[in-house]
Amino acid sequence: MSSRRMLLGMQFGNGYGAQVTSWRAPNVDPKNYTDIDAVVRYAQAAERGKIQFLFLPDTPALSSDLTHEAPQMTLDPLLTLAAVARGTSRIGMVATGSTTFIEPYNLARQFKALDVMSHGRAGWNPATTSDPNAAANFGQTIAERPERYGRAHEVIQIVQALWGSWEEDAWIADPTTGIFADPAKVRPVNLGGQYVSSRGPLPIPPSEQGQPVLFSAGGGEYGLTLAGRYASGVIGSTFSIDDARAQRDAAREAAGAAGRDPDEVKFFAGLMPAIAPTVRDAVERRMLLGTNTFPQRVPYLGQMLGLRLDPRQIDEPLTAEQLAAARPSPYDPRAPRAFEVANQGWTLREILGHGVIDYHPTPVGPASVTADHMQEWFEAGAVDGFWVSIDTYEDGIDTFVDEVVPLLQERGLFHEDYEGKTLRDHLGAAPQYGLDPRVSGVGVAH
Amino acid sequence: MSSRRMLLGMQFGNGYGAQVTSWRAPNVDPKNYTDIDAVVRYAQAAERGKIQFLFLPDTPALSSDLTHEAPQMTLDPLLTLAAVARGTSRIGMVATGSTTFIEPYNLARQFKALDVMSHGRAGWNPATTSDPNAAANFGQTIAERPERYGRAHEVIQIVQALWGSWEEDAWIADPTTGIFADPAKVRPVNLGGQYVSSRGPLPIPPSEQGQPVLFSAGGGEYGLTLAGRYASGVIGSTFSIDDARAQRDAAREAAGAAGRDPDEVKFFAGLMPAIAPTVRDAVERRMLLGTNTFPQRVPYLGQMLGLRLDPRQIDEPLTAEQLAAARPSPYDPRAPRAFEVANQGWTLREILGHGVIDYHPTPVGPASVTADHMQEWFEAGAVDGFWVSIDTYEDGIDTFVDEVVPLLQERGLFHEDYEGKTLRDHLGAAPQYGLDPRVSGVGVAH
Ligand SMILES: Cc1cc2nc3c(=O)[nH]c(=O)nc-3n(C[C@H](O)[C@H](O)[C@H](O)COP(=O)(O)O)c2cc1C
Ligand SMILES: Cc1cc2nc3c(=O)[nH]c(=O)nc-3n(C[C@H](O)[C@H](O)[C@H](O)COP(=O)(O)O)c2cc1C
Repeated sequence: MSSRRMLLGMQFGNGYGAQVTSWRAPNVDPKNYTDIDAVVRYAQAAERGKIQFLFLPDTPALSSDLTHEAPQMTLDPLLTLAAVARGTSRIGMVATGSTTFIEPYNLARQFKALDVMSHGRAGWNPATTSDPNAAANFGQTIAERPERYGRAHEVIQIVQALWGSWEEDAWIADPTTGIFADPAKVRPVNLGGQYVSSRGPLPIPPSEQGQPVLFSAGGGEYGLTLAGRYASGVIGSTFSIDDARAQRDAAREAAGAAGRDPDEVKFFAGLMPAIAPTVRDAVERRMLLGTNTFPQRVPYLGQMLGLRLDPRQIDEPLTAEQLAAARPSPYDPRAPRAFEVANQGWTLREILGHGVIDYHPTPVGPASVTADHMQEWFEAGAVDGFWVSIDTYEDGIDTFVDEVVPLLQERGLFHEDYEGKTLRDHLGAAPQYGLDPRVSGVGVAH
Repeated sequence: MSSRRMLLGMQFGNGYGAQVTSWRAPNVDPKNYTDIDAVVRYAQAAERGKIQFLFLPDTPALSSDLTHEAPQMTLDPLLTLAAVARGTSRIGMVATGSTTFIEPYNLARQFKALDVMSHGRAGWNPATTSDPNAAANFGQTIAERPERYGRAHEVIQIVQALWGSWEEDAWIADPTTGIFADPAKVRPVNLGGQYVSSRGPLPIPPSEQGQPVLFSAGGGEYGLTLAGRYASGVIGSTFSIDDARAQRDAAREAAGAAGRDPDEVKFFAGLMPAIAPTVRDAVERRMLLGTNTFPQRVPYLGQMLGLRLDPRQIDEPLTAEQLAAARPSPYDPRAPRAFEVANQGWTLREILGHGVIDYHPTPVGPASVTADHMQEWFEAGAVDGFWVSIDTYEDGIDTFVDEVVPLLQERGLFHEDYEGKTLRDHLGAAPQYGLDPRVSGVGVAH
């Protein structure tokens, strides 16, 4: 029994699930993309499982090939969460908001509004947006990292300063005296940098958690600096315990370098479980979704294995010669797992059905396989928790909540209920109101 | 009995009501500003009254003096309406969105998301934003009208083109074939002008009404051109039947000049009823809210009457000498009404309690006074409907719905129930999908 508990976030996307083809899964209404009722129902299922937060990735562009794939994000992350807030009462809600293509005042206002509307359950993942399709939607091109991240630091600092523009006791609202607020405690921020500036104040008082919690996902060295300065949660894509531990250590060191306590940053590893009573059932479940997309992935599977593979072989396993020649590619961290599965004799389609080209590790089989994976990584000190991507929301969230969560709870690895009411409570995140004085001075100035 | 029916919109603000001091009214929770439950309850009350639409004014700035006054807008109009959409099923929902300080792609996405989430009930009031406090929040200053309106035309056209970037039958979602959408029918818009540009497409299919309905409010000659080209509803501030008729004619002419049918534009006159069993009760209701704000309005009341007035006279009527010297100011359209009320012998505080310095005409007294005012203006051909500002939402919406609406219905002036499901249905607005071909070519080009 472990005394520390893991934290869980859930990736939350387009109304179907984390596979681009989840929309055609059995029992899924193929029009869920526009059905907010379904999204609210899925959020309620996650809340039943005491998941600490939902997390909505976002890019302001349509970049998928719509022929077979659904867009990979919600209609709009903030409006979706405003709706989810009406149907839930405890679960945290994190949305991605681009620091490049949304003005800091607009970011500050909408995230703070969500935080207040949800009684302190909001979080913000400030993304620097590297998709050229997004840039084109704003009549721009993608700038180099120094500029994108330079702007991101300014935007984040202005947003946090605007969040703190009402002192915590500024709002009086006493009908007897007729005093609504103390104007001396609601002040402009007057901050500006090289890219953006804003005067404020924001027209919004503090929420139950003060202001939204910041997250960070991906992003290399530049992203690490950003995470170290501002993030309470860091999400990583990682395929081994050693790499996860290295990513976690790097995030903690970045926090330390920014003058923060490393424990203020929690590291979450992505996870895309394929859960079914047997391994074969779990693989079948994924193969059903892959009818149209798996054939075109065969050549890339070949690259991962150091082989030239033809889609026509999709329903055959590797031949003895192929197996003998196969070498896991050193350029793709998922290759060792693909190699391992190939050696078990599965067909190419079945290998792909193991999720070996997915963005996050895919434990395959009954719930205990996923629970064991999580326990192993967690007890190895590689993660503070997981960011779970469910393949098909319609039944997959319930399966995770009804089968994996109880195993984790029995093993003492996951809480039995929410400890508090706000996202900060759920994460054990440090209180913060306004700019963190330890990082101010970087980026923007008066 | 009239055969034409009037249309009703309701101004919807900060959770209290249309008076800056409504927050301190009896029975109002003074913290409603941050309580979205209250806002949803008020929207439900308006829906019970079959009001065609809610309309949320907005400026991205905090410009009120918070000592006594609440901010005059919602925490965020789009997030508020996403929440309201969850608690209502028929009422239309119009939000103001700045064409100056929000990028067209972001406007297009959020308004279309609201439209889809609400099953075709959204509308957009594109505002050119003239408040310097708003500009400062974006590190800018307010540009002159030609630039602000030039940008507004471009933004509106790009937004509407993005709304039309999925052909109406592009979305297939057939799980049997695995075809999600026809990519040939989801196309970039590639539009650009002098100020803004965007490639698209938007990741959102059509709503039940195709796309949001456009509104316009205020704005002089420049605003009229904008209204004539794009708006299905125009809201005016006007204090006499003749002026209302002139404003309505001007909007209709502007539509005609843009190649549209004048009947496509409905004109709404603002109205701020003060309803209570007697005139005195209605005046008392307003005076209660004005304790802190009325004294400082006395000098301006004097100007309206051509007199120098001192706040110390607030609880006295005008003297015989003052009455004899009084002349309604030709510079304020509200002055004749102030003069009329002053001549009835009310004290200065009571005169102000008649709403004579409010933004819209204030019928004072039992519900029939308001109904009579509405009937008179409507039957004079001065308006297609009204934009009703309720002084205190907590009880005022119910009063309007339970007392004024039935009178209008008995007189055959207002519908008994919603005719359809979408905002376009409610307004009898012309179908539109994508850019209106009659106005394309102005502003942006490929
Ligand atoms: C789990 C995870 C989720 C992510 N979500 C987003 C997202 O929603 N939007 C986005 O623009 N980038 C997202 N990213 C980050 C990008 O994948 C990429 O790492 C980031 O854009 C950094 O690239 P850059 O340094 O060139 O900006 C995510 C990364 C990870 C690992
Ligand atoms: C009923 C009504 C509602 C209005 N609502 C808004 C609003 O929400 N936001 C805004 O910026 N302007 C709003 N306006 C418009 C401004 O009052 C003003 O007319 C407009 O900014 C035009 O000024 P401009 O031509 O200098 O831009 C409204 C006007 C009226 C009559």
